Amino acid sequence: LKEGRRKAFQELMEELQPYDMAWQYKEIPEKHRYKFLAYMTIEELTDLMGELDQDDQLDVLDRLGAKRSTKVLDLMENDELASFLTDLEPEKMKELLGDMKREESQMVQDIMNYPPETAGRLMNNRFVWIKKHYTIGEAVDKLKEFAELAEYLNYLYVIDEERKLVGVVSYRDLLLAEADEKIEDVMYGRVVKVEVTEDQEEAAKLISRYDFVSLPVVKEDNTLAGVITVDDIIDVVIQEANEDIERLSASGKDIDFSTKPLVAAYRRLPWLIILLFVGLVSGGIISGFEGTLDAVVALAFFMPMIAGMTGNTGTQSLAVVVRGLVQEDLTFKQTARLILREFWVGILIGITCGILITFVAFFWQGDLQLGLVVGSSLLLTLIIGTLAGTIIPLILYKLNVDPAIASGPLITTINDILSLLIYFGIATTFLINLS
Amino acid sequence: LKEGRRKAFQELMEELQPYDMAWQYKEIPEKHRYKFLAYMTIEELTDLMGELDQDDQLDVLDRLGAKRSTKVLDLMENDELASFLTDLEPEKMKELLGDMKREESQMVQDIMNYPPETAGRLMNNRFVWIKKHYTIGEAVDKLKEFAELAEYLNYLYVIDEERKLVGVVSYRDLLLAEADEKIEDVMYGRVVKVEVTEDQEEAAKLISRYDFVSLPVVKEDNTLAGVITVDDIIDVVIQEANEDIERLSASGKDIDFSTKPLVAAYRRLPWLIILLFVGLVSGGIISGFEGTLDAVVALAFFMPMIAGMTGNTGTQSLAVVVRGLVQEDLTFKQTARLILREFWVGILIGITCGILITFVAFFWQGDLQLGLVVGSSLLLTLIIGTLAGTIIPLILYKLNVDPAIASGPLITTINDILSLLIYFGIATTFLINLS
Repeated sequence: LKEGRRKAFQELMEELQPYDMAWQYKEIPEKHRYKFLAYMTIEELTDLMGELDQDDQLDVLDRLGAKRSTKVLDLMENDELASFLTDLEPEKMKELLGDMKREESQMVQDIMNYPPETAGRLMNNRFVWIKKHYTIGEAVDKLKEFAELAEYLNYLYVIDEERKLVGVVSYRDLLLAEADEKIEDVMYGRVVKVEVTEDQEEAAKLISRYDFVSLPVVKEDNTLAGVITVDDIIDVVIQEANEDIERLSASGKDIDFSTKPLVAAYRRLPWLIILLFVGLVSGGIISGFEGTLDAVVALAFFMPMIAGMTGNTGTQSLAVVVRGLVQEDLTFKQTARLILREFWVGILIGITCGILITFVAFFWQGDLQLGLVVGSSLLLTLIIGTLAGTIIPLILYKLNVDPAIASGPLITTINDILSLLIYFGIATTFLINLS
Repeated sequence: LKEGRRKAFQELMEELQPYDMAWQYKEIPEKHRYKFLAYMTIEELTDLMGELDQDDQLDVLDRLGAKRSTKVLDLMENDELASFLTDLEPEKMKELLGDMKREESQMVQDIMNYPPETAGRLMNNRFVWIKKHYTIGEAVDKLKEFAELAEYLNYLYVIDEERKLVGVVSYRDLLLAEADEKIEDVMYGRVVKVEVTEDQEEAAKLISRYDFVSLPVVKEDNTLAGVITVDDIIDVVIQEANEDIERLSASGKDIDFSTKPLVAAYRRLPWLIILLFVGLVSGGIISGFEGTLDAVVALAFFMPMIAGMTGNTGTQSLAVVVRGLVQEDLTFKQTARLILREFWVGILIGITCGILITFVAFFWQGDLQLGLVVGSSLLLTLIIGTLAGTIIPLILYKLNVDPAIASGPLITTINDILSLLIYFGIATTFLINLS
């Protein structure tokens, strides 16, 4: 590049995958970037844009100048373009959209109108449709004409006169059929599809269930609106998993290795401050039992263990529920069965740990009554903790409330409070009032 | 089905996707299953098998009888077959392998020899290879001949005389090229590939990075061994996410909605029992500071809050590290930068929460000295908790120790112990010794 060897550079680029191009681009020094971009074709620039994050994308567009950047925007996948444009300032967005081809800019605006995390937001228009009365030969011709669009797919979608989706034909079917056969006769009619307004998780379930490479997206009237490709779905699966983990750890959104300290602290603080005050509720409970604690200081020794165990079993249950809901939807009957299952799990865990701690407490403190109080408290708190970790996220799920509220620390904190009430309640009854 | 309408049934089956077939099969009453299976073609049975779990798979094979079941096994994807066979009793496995075609059974045994979670374990041989000196026409003929194998892919892999992988051609390229062109001239030479022994996560990274539908797997000498398809990768991504969540919640492996209570309790208990004893260490620390606690009982009120907050911030850091490692590998420099970042985050969080709790404690208990002890303890424990949640999983990762050890509850428990030591240490120094 330094020596301006344009031809060698272009040959290299032709061989590179988009991801590697982006990597190369980010590695070279600032001053060479103009030349790097100038040597690339519009198609390569489009691939490059798809791999960069927003700041770098804006930077590339600036360097390209108005004319080339408009061409690149016209060629970008609409879903990528939509997510690039969404967070821009309104003026910049209008300017960019204004320069684009009419139909491309219309399509992008359509996509941006769908709510985030819906199928409509993920779809793109880089696919080839054919009409059902075409012959195989005509279909292949159309495919050759729009080869650029069809790069990542291995199906053609078949529509009728009203643009309604009626079938699907794979490239392999085209290779195997005779040129004069009708598309209608070779196409597969039971098309699996999603509607534009459906949740992206639904699209992910369908693609992973049926092992598809792409999934057609239709409007309410069954007209074909776009396709979702499997590479977008992998991103969805990773994103949903990250959301579950944020939920379990209350770690706050969008913190990765490159987030600045101030930003990361700011995103993590809200939950911590809420939990700080909820933690003080535990303190209030203990202060309410000050008399009991004063009389039997040894009760304090088992406090962290009981609160911790209850929190842990609740988090275990929560994790099972949260992950399970990703793969399956629950009917009422299944929900009841799950709660019953967790109830039994709580009893089994509670009995095992309860008996164990009764002996430990007895031998450590030499006090059978104390041992029995600790053991029976643990039995009860483990059952309740398990149920809380199961039922709270299920209720939120059924109510369609954002389940992010049922985060791990919240369950832990609720279980903290419940376990302290039970522990000190039992202790006060048996150690103070009865003795 | 009841009325034995064989033809209507077969037409229906032809239209169904494998997942829906399996769903139908599980829905019909036991007594109709023989007929259901009898009506199906070998190809359909193979699809069905791919969607069932092991018990149902064995049941289907039993119902099919020796001859048809052998045919089905021969046709199954090798990676699916390998995972079906892996957990079988050795005798049953030998019997089934013995009935199969020699080469198929050899391939499956080869796959089963690779360690779990490697690329070799995921690959299958349902793909079509061509030699580089073929013409386009010859390649299309070969594709037509092996159409069954090529169903899910959209590439042909190109090998040389020694079976070494030298290129890749997409079905689209075949459609676009002239019949007499040479494969060598249209193929793409920079094939992205994995070695058989590489981790499945590496394969997942490559496929999601480059948006591929399939990825070739080669042996050490670059001979083509198989392909991994994107549908397997989606499963890998889900599996790895589940592992991370198991790690964060210590919920134990393989618990889903259908796990029996006894099994679920058995899988969850080991961690809980370990954590029970570790929780007793906290108890031991408190009992060591019994004098301090006796003198200032109000210290107990803030105990759950301090331990809880330290645990929470540690879990937040752990989640960021665990998820980050899924998407990126860390150099030494990046690791150092990450630890420094989390150090700053700890300081920022610690100062905010520390000041807040100082005021709350002062106004609640009317004791400035107590407020300062609680506030400064929280500042210190939050910094240390954040660092522990970052550094412990990183050390395990660098040491290549199974990071499952760095589970959320373990970090929480370590942070519990550290926070109690700091809290009572500071309290003893300032409230007891100095007053």
